[in-house]
Amino acid sequence: FTQTGNASFYSNKFQGKKMANGQPYRKRKLTAAHNTLPFGTKVKVKNQENGRTVKVKITDRGPHSRNRILDLSLAAARRLDMVQSGVVPVTIKVIRRP
Amino acid sequence: FTQTGNASFYSNKFQGKKMANGQPYRKRKLTAAHNTLPFGTKVKVKNQENGRTVKVKITDRGPHSRNRILDLSLAAARRLDMVQSGVVPVTIKVIRRP
Repeated sequence: FTQTGNASFYSNKFQGKKMANGQPYRKRKLTAAHNTLPFGTKVKVKNQENGRTVKVKITDRGPHSRNRILDLSLAAARRLDMVQSGVVPVTIKVIRRP
Repeated sequence: FTQTGNASFYSNKFQGKKMANGQPYRKRKLTAAHNTLPFGTKVKVKNQENGRTVKVKITDRGPHSRNRILDLSLAAARRLDMVQSGVVPVTIKVIRRP
């Protein structure tokens, strides 16, 4: 499974709030929200603007917006150097099923 | 309860997909995703750019982005005349608790 689209990241205000998998969001963990992949799926995300990559675990559902395929934790967004941009084009690839 | 921030709306691809309340998303219904209000809460939404309003029922969770407080169904976005803009500043007010 590979997919191309835009990724955004979680606002800080979600820190500690419950995600769709029942766990609290932790901004320092490498996690992401995706709309269909099972919780626990490991995904490799590539920022198409700078080539940086990060591996994240799917722990939440979302986003709802057009062309948006992933909402990343703050830590993951930092790895991709996309915090200033806010939204960047990414490619995601499943590297481990749960 | 009143709140000010930005609203976006659901991509068409969510038609029929399960929302956080367990029901399928229907783009012609007047619904919205909010992060904390209980499902079934009735909210009045005002588009601050043109003054248009719509009443929606909270049926889903989201959005995760900064300053984003609401994801509206397509029908609700049309009532607010915000489909071209994509994102608009809104004020929301709870008008009925579930």
